[in-house]
Amino acid sequence: MVELDRILAEVRDGKLSVDAALKLLQPVKELEFAKIDLDRERRTGVAEVVYGQGKTAEQLLALFTGLMERSRRVLATRVSPEAAAHVRRAAPDAVYHEAGRLLSWARSGESPRGREEYVAIVSAGTLDQPVAEEAAATVEALGYRAIRVRDVGVAGIHRLFQSLPTVAGAVASVVVAGMEGALPGVVAGLVSRPVIAVPTSVGYGASFGGLAGLLTMLNACAPGVSVVNIDNGFGGGYIAASICRLALERSGVADE
Amino acid sequence: MVELDRILAEVRDGKLSVDAALKLLQPVKELEFAKIDLDRERRTGVAEVVYGQGKTAEQLLALFTGLMERSRRVLATRVSPEAAAHVRRAAPDAVYHEAGRLLSWARSGESPRGREEYVAIVSAGTLDQPVAEEAAATVEALGYRAIRVRDVGVAGIHRLFQSLPTVAGAVASVVVAGMEGALPGVVAGLVSRPVIAVPTSVGYGASFGGLAGLLTMLNACAPGVSVVNIDNGFGGGYIAASICRLALERSGVADE
Amino acid sequence: MVELDRILAEVRDGKLSVDAALKLLQPVKELEFAKIDLDRERRTGVAEVVYGQGKTAEQLLALFTGLMERSRRVLATRVSPEAAAHVRRAAPDAVYHEAGRLLSWARSGESPRGREEYVAIVSAGTLDQPVAEEAAATVEALGYRAIRVRDVGVAGIHRLFQSLPTVAGAVASVVVAGMEGALPGVVAGLVSRPVIAVPTSVGYGASFGGLAGLLTMLNACAPGVSVVNIDNGFGGGYIAASICRLALERSGVADE
Amino acid sequence: MVELDRILAEVRDGKLSVDAALKLLQPVKELEFAKIDLDRERRTGVAEVVYGQGKTAEQLLALFTGLMERSRRVLATRVSPEAAAHVRRAAPDAVYHEAGRLLSWARSGESPRGREEYVAIVSAGTLDQPVAEEAAATVEALGYRAIRVRDVGVAGIHRLFQSLPTVAGAVASVVVAGMEGALPGVVAGLVSRPVIAVPTSVGYGASFGGLAGLLTMLNACAPGVSVVNIDNGFGGGYIAASICRLALERSGVADE
Amino acid sequence: MVELDRILAEVRDGKLSVDAALKLLQPVKELEFAKIDLDRERRTGVAEVVYGQGKTAEQLLALFTGLMERSRRVLATRVSPEAAAHVRRAAPDAVYHEAGRLLSWARSGESPRGREEYVAIVSAGTLDQPVAEEAAATVEALGYRAIRVRDVGVAGIHRLFQSLPTVAGAVASVVVAGMEGALPGVVAGLVSRPVIAVPTSVGYGASFGGLAGLLTMLNACAPGVSVVNIDNGFGGGYIAASICRLALERSGVADE
Amino acid sequence: MVELDRILAEVRDGKLSVDAALKLLQPVKELEFAKIDLDRERRTGVAEVVYGQGKTAEQLLALFTGLMERSRRVLATRVSPEAAAHVRRAAPDAVYHEAGRLLSWARSGESPRGREEYVAIVSAGTLDQPVAEEAAATVEALGYRAIRVRDVGVAGIHRLFQSLPTVAGAVASVVVAGMEGALPGVVAGLVSRPVIAVPTSVGYGASFGGLAGLLTMLNACAPGVSVVNIDNGFGGGYIAASICRLALERSGVADE
Amino acid sequence: MVELDRILAEVRDGKLSVDAALKLLQPVKELEFAKIDLDRERRTGVAEVVYGQGKTAEQLLALFTGLMERSRRVLATRVSPEAAAHVRRAAPDAVYHEAGRLLSWARSGESPRGREEYVAIVSAGTLDQPVAEEAAATVEALGYRAIRVRDVGVAGIHRLFQSLPTVAGAVASVVVAGMEGALPGVVAGLVSRPVIAVPTSVGYGASFGGLAGLLTMLNACAPGVSVVNIDNGFGGGYIAASICRLALERSGVADE
Amino acid sequence: MVELDRILAEVRDGKLSVDAALKLLQPVKELEFAKIDLDRERRTGVAEVVYGQGKTAEQLLALFTGLMERSRRVLATRVSPEAAAHVRRAAPDAVYHEAGRLLSWARSGESPRGREEYVAIVSAGTLDQPVAEEAAATVEALGYRAIRVRDVGVAGIHRLFQSLPTVAGAVASVVVAGMEGALPGVVAGLVSRPVIAVPTSVGYGASFGGLAGLLTMLNACAPGVSVVNIDNGFGGGYIAASICRLALERSGVADE
Repeated sequence: MVELDRILAEVRDGKLSVDAALKLLQPVKELEFAKIDLDRERRTGVAEVVYGQGKTAEQLLALFTGLMERSRRVLATRVSPEAAAHVRRAAPDAVYHEAGRLLSWARSGESPRGREEYVAIVSAGTLDQPVAEEAAATVEALGYRAIRVRDVGVAGIHRLFQSLPTVAGAVASVVVAGMEGALPGVVAGLVSRPVIAVPTSVGYGASFGGLAGLLTMLNACAPGVSVVNIDNGFGGGYIAASICRLALERSGVADE
Repeated sequence: MVELDRILAEVRDGKLSVDAALKLLQPVKELEFAKIDLDRERRTGVAEVVYGQGKTAEQLLALFTGLMERSRRVLATRVSPEAAAHVRRAAPDAVYHEAGRLLSWARSGESPRGREEYVAIVSAGTLDQPVAEEAAATVEALGYRAIRVRDVGVAGIHRLFQSLPTVAGAVASVVVAGMEGALPGVVAGLVSRPVIAVPTSVGYGASFGGLAGLLTMLNACAPGVSVVNIDNGFGGGYIAASICRLALERSGVADE
Repeated sequence: MVELDRILAEVRDGKLSVDAALKLLQPVKELEFAKIDLDRERRTGVAEVVYGQGKTAEQLLALFTGLMERSRRVLATRVSPEAAAHVRRAAPDAVYHEAGRLLSWARSGESPRGREEYVAIVSAGTLDQPVAEEAAATVEALGYRAIRVRDVGVAGIHRLFQSLPTVAGAVASVVVAGMEGALPGVVAGLVSRPVIAVPTSVGYGASFGGLAGLLTMLNACAPGVSVVNIDNGFGGGYIAASICRLALERSGVADE
Repeated sequence: MVELDRILAEVRDGKLSVDAALKLLQPVKELEFAKIDLDRERRTGVAEVVYGQGKTAEQLLALFTGLMERSRRVLATRVSPEAAAHVRRAAPDAVYHEAGRLLSWARSGESPRGREEYVAIVSAGTLDQPVAEEAAATVEALGYRAIRVRDVGVAGIHRLFQSLPTVAGAVASVVVAGMEGALPGVVAGLVSRPVIAVPTSVGYGASFGGLAGLLTMLNACAPGVSVVNIDNGFGGGYIAASICRLALERSGVADE
Repeated sequence: MVELDRILAEVRDGKLSVDAALKLLQPVKELEFAKIDLDRERRTGVAEVVYGQGKTAEQLLALFTGLMERSRRVLATRVSPEAAAHVRRAAPDAVYHEAGRLLSWARSGESPRGREEYVAIVSAGTLDQPVAEEAAATVEALGYRAIRVRDVGVAGIHRLFQSLPTVAGAVASVVVAGMEGALPGVVAGLVSRPVIAVPTSVGYGASFGGLAGLLTMLNACAPGVSVVNIDNGFGGGYIAASICRLALERSGVADE
Repeated sequence: MVELDRILAEVRDGKLSVDAALKLLQPVKELEFAKIDLDRERRTGVAEVVYGQGKTAEQLLALFTGLMERSRRVLATRVSPEAAAHVRRAAPDAVYHEAGRLLSWARSGESPRGREEYVAIVSAGTLDQPVAEEAAATVEALGYRAIRVRDVGVAGIHRLFQSLPTVAGAVASVVVAGMEGALPGVVAGLVSRPVIAVPTSVGYGASFGGLAGLLTMLNACAPGVSVVNIDNGFGGGYIAASICRLALERSGVADE
Repeated sequence: MVELDRILAEVRDGKLSVDAALKLLQPVKELEFAKIDLDRERRTGVAEVVYGQGKTAEQLLALFTGLMERSRRVLATRVSPEAAAHVRRAAPDAVYHEAGRLLSWARSGESPRGREEYVAIVSAGTLDQPVAEEAAATVEALGYRAIRVRDVGVAGIHRLFQSLPTVAGAVASVVVAGMEGALPGVVAGLVSRPVIAVPTSVGYGASFGGLAGLLTMLNACAPGVSVVNIDNGFGGGYIAASICRLALERSGVADE
Repeated sequence: MVELDRILAEVRDGKLSVDAALKLLQPVKELEFAKIDLDRERRTGVAEVVYGQGKTAEQLLALFTGLMERSRRVLATRVSPEAAAHVRRAAPDAVYHEAGRLLSWARSGESPRGREEYVAIVSAGTLDQPVAEEAAATVEALGYRAIRVRDVGVAGIHRLFQSLPTVAGAVASVVVAGMEGALPGVVAGLVSRPVIAVPTSVGYGASFGGLAGLLTMLNACAPGVSVVNIDNGFGGGYIAASICRLALERSGVADE
């Protein structure tokens, strides 16, 4: 739709039939229960990502393999080991990241994208690590590099200082924290790159399923913090990866 | 009521009349609009504290001078300069602390209590200082020593380290913070004495009038943090003062 | 970090190598999934406490025994009987407090700290007792004395008066209450020492998992009440223990 | 509508015209902006009560005098002194209760109802008294007797015991409290008659405009407490008055 | 405590020993996990009611039989059939009301109290009936009469009119409703006696576990509605029973 | 009640007995646990709809067959396959729509109502389809035509444009969306007919069980959006069907 | 965009230049601070409606007159008398509805649309009438007929029955209610046409600015109720008008 | 602290005195009421930003000029015109951006940073523009380029498509929206760069001061959206600027 004027010109010049133009403007593959957005990789750099939770293994398989037809990389989140196994019987070169519950596939020949840049995945406590792993696996499945910095919560703030050069050197940090959620604000006060905060539902009582940490992060005093949904490690990793892609492109590292 | 058996025994032995016993058990001064709790200083170490907000200057005057009759120290919070002036016309030796909006009075001859111990009043930002001043003035009006540590919010965490010896040496810290409210958890990870956290209503948007900071503090990972109501500097100072009194008593410093 | 000037001076004077200085400033034991904060006992008087919920028995074991290497007392909360048994196979002198779900260990030779002072653990109803037990077991595991006062909720307020001398004599009270949560405010009106209020998730309907009681406690009219998170018996016990330690130190009772 | 069979029978027997029957079933006086419910005094014992807030003095006048035509007693709540003066120019025997902001009128010859019973209006603090006055004035305007018990909040619980015989002797208590809202539960544990709890918006921070007290009251451990809306002194007084009417009727005291 | 002067006078006159006086003022039976309030039946007309949920069958048995020693009627709520069976092995004349999940016992010879008055238990929908049954069984277990009016929700408002004479004739109505919770306000607009509203957790989506109905009831336009906690059928029945007791006493019907 | 004057006239004229008139005004079938509203089909065009959740199969059967006696179409929602099978043993011509969990029955001879009009059932994502199916099955069970438009969420907004003619041609759209809930506002900006928005509980973290989407829909910038409860596909379908009935009636298509 | 194929075909056939096609697909008038959506009247039947609150009189004037160029009817909501006067100096045939705070304009020659159908605007109380007036004025400004039914809240439910024929005869009802918000559910149980519920912010205490009524309406037991935002009279009127337009079109009444 | 090893080594080698080292590690300028964080520009690329709201003009002046001593660029947000004038009397080369309420200053010689990249500032409605201006002015004050795209809310979604090339070409977009807040999710589905969503408090009723939009944005289906606090245009602009800086650095554009 972005290129509407070009398409109209080609139609006028007879280079493009009306039907072909319509198809270009409606790039959708119809399944019985879904419409796959085949144009998204061109628009956004990443093909539609399948949200696995609540979907049957059959639905997952149909969506995943449907996307494989036209995409360079395919990603599904919140995939159970059973569903992953089901898809991998049809797509044996798909890879399952168990800790992050991600299923990913890259077209053969797709090499990892540039290694010169990396994203820091910082987590506050042991219990925050599954969400942090979802973030890290997302970054890696999209072809970029992630470095994990673990267990540096503010209750022992000196643990963070030790890892600070790693965090400061990243193009962006995904900072994952439950309970009080104070870590992203502290990190943002120490580094110059964007901090994407991911609250987790770890905690009890008045943490209200992660709401307390979410509010903490939205109210961070240090600028440079933006927030994604509770437990949304994928979302955090996705944004960090898009910043990494920008940095690599500007560095002249071709995207494959 | 605590001494019920002694009172009953004295009644039995004729040492105490029934009327006198009843009075002891009902130590209340009746005003038209209030019942002053004259026994509280004996029970809790501090006379009833007058909450000034919403009260007329006349009511404040009646309560304040009513308490002066039987107490060693009297305290009123959230007192406007006008109301303070009104009371001070009748009680010229009362003292008004403008920044903390406290009015206090000590019976002539009441010297400050021991200076060997102190409370640290730690505030995160400039805008949190009125609440911090209420806490500090409360500590001082109750006869104890307060040391103020200002503007050490987590967005520039190294500012806290500079003042850490002061904070670590206090018998208790009152830590006042708005916005994200992360400071008390960081302090509690660095010192061994109790941290009383006071959220402030400073902030905007999703701070919800201090709720965000309140939740942060309740969910602090570091143990040792307890929380009082939003903007309740008085409450924080009161508890710290009671810990200070305990330390002084145990050190053998007589309470006047 | 507190002793930064001393460390720098020793480096200057050649008494301390740069590597040793760095180590002192970064006192962390690295596990694969966690960084143990080995300096915390020195800083705060209590070693890092392991939050057991959500951790595997293996993780618990690694953290618990990791802490035992350099600490005098080690504590883990919310530990299931199974996980406790797992740890105790490796650390047979660890003790499991079933009602409070705490696992604790003290270095051989660590005698209980002074018995002259005690903490009162006051609970409102039968159903609040597991949280009260967590508080009491925490106090005891940290080496202090706890006296339990049970079932004195405000619906039968005279039951409290009977136990008032016990409560008034404590250095601090942990007051545990569900449903309406009114007990801490009543207690604080009757005693002179700090009251740490612990709301519990006991209740139904509009108790909202303990939120009602939490709000009640934050809004207590009587000063002297501070609040910890819902069901956080450990947090309440920890603070009371730190007040007890202060009183004992000031009384000249050496900490072991 | 309750007497539908009787009305139908009278229509059948020609004792009642269809038009008259319709009128009986639709007892409404039409103003341009309102429909006055003229049947309510017959149905509920009390004529429609006018909620004064947000209404113009003109609207108030029209409603108040419209009700006077067919009722024995008329009542308007939340009436400003100015609006009251406006109505009283047209209805000079209406009475304005300033503290409770009520305007009331009784048909000449309506004597106060029985004095043998009374309602206790119990308030926790000085700032709760305007709401308590609304409750008390409501009881009195409806023709019953109210006894006020003031400033007996739980922070000094012995003040309540002094007034307990008064409270226990009432047919019902309206207990008005802000901040933590614990008083109704304590009262209900001490008396045998219904307790109607009225939370007030007095408080700050996490009182959330009275929500904290409202939740406290709904979660009271002692049975016998029911709750009306925040600051709804009128509602509390109305219910207590209806219990008073029941008691008087059963005692054989005719309702005028 | 109410009779403090009489007790003091008897102590003075040697009619009462100090120990006996103390016992009178502390009427509590100590179990290991609870303090039974033996004085409550005298104070409030009803012995302490045992809240069964979350208690073991053993605890229930101890509390129930402990209360039987000194009370005329004993009541436990939220009792599972299994726990009821356990208690009834020790107390075979206890009665279990399965629909209302109540266990009750009356001292042999305690006849039902007066039948001249009754309480209406009005429920909006089929799914609200368990809560309505708890209310009805409570009224009956306390010795009073309950008449049930079922399935008269506002979605078919004419169903209510049919039962209106029954509702209007009661001394009080307990009105139980889930979802929108509008029924109590409609009832209160039609009758002259108190309406105790019980919101239920029936509903889905934005009913938020009964919160929607609770708010509706608190905001009812018709005066005469007071509210108890969500699903608290017992609380509603208890208050209605206390009004019934008042009416019977004033009618000269002796309480057994 | 609407025809009150006619009924009264007939009673006067002896055409109708008092008993018959009463019956007409109280058109209710009494079951032990419910009152079936037999007049509703006449009043509202649709017989009472049975909400199946939480009801036993026996209750469902009694209600469903009770309604079949006097209605042309009967509908029950949230019916499990087992309960449906139970009812269908007694009512073999009832039809069960498994995806939408609806059980419906039409009197033999009831042909589908007009096919000239239809309702669009638009759903945002795969996981929203069960709720969309409840809406579609409701429309169909009431005798109207539904066209489903699936998987057109705003994350790939061009998928919606493809189906826009279908949506624009409907008499009304039911737009079902979880997570952010933005779809109804986008649709309403593109079509001229009413949009009934149905938020679903699909989502996680800060979707709070559908609350986020509900708020989004209530705040839609484009006018023309009204909202029903979370997951209330039935409610959405019911309203759309009533608009469809209006259009058909005005088009002169007789309702059977 | 809906007619994309036709536009593409015309471009191919040289009937439409690329520039003209682009313009058709981008029908926007650019102001400095806004983009006026000139295509909306064609798409949705109603031109873009200007939300007046917070806009300067200058902005309002620019938007209003900008829309007048290409629309048949123009509407602005929440317009102050001053801003209305400012616009009417430039557009003297615009009409200001003071009670509903609407400013509207119809192209000369635009006669009112069909009078055969009407919308009922039902309001519960006197204080709800400004919102009801906004709804009624919206219906009228869009060219349709509104009949107002006032002050029929559920506290005197018989007042509604009197007006029931009027409500039942409307193509749709907009039901406006504050406080408890029960009226829409009662109406929907009595009529066959859609009920659009508008909660108002009228109320106090636990009405939370209209939230209580909003929840009530979303949880209405009677199907047929959908809800718009609090105080959104315009939104309610807009939807009712769109139903009215549908009915008139199907009746063969041409839209001017 | 990041360079701790280097500093320690220099101390060891006598290149750095202990005092100088301490100063480097504590780079704070002490005012009476604040500690200015002089090291932040080195750490994060941007000097401490002064939050102007609630500060006196004197405080603002002290902070602003204090920062000017050691920084290249200084920025204060939420500055009133009066306060700005006050500062500019002392710092005449500071610039005040009235629409965005920002005061900024750049050291003489600081040229704008690279113009090759830009940030898109996208706003949904007219009323969202003050917040959007704060974001745009922040980007510009930090030395980067901002392009504004206004009034492209989802109610007229085609307005967005027109501006899509501008948005897609930016290194990042700040998308500002009130009411339903759906715009960021739509944008993120169409572009490949990060979208920073800024909810505004524009709206009424159930928008709850921006909470509705905030939740919408957190729940956006399209990945790539992160969120800052309500009305926090500064925060959004700051993050976008940091992404812009990264892109310019990687492009080899030196940062001055």
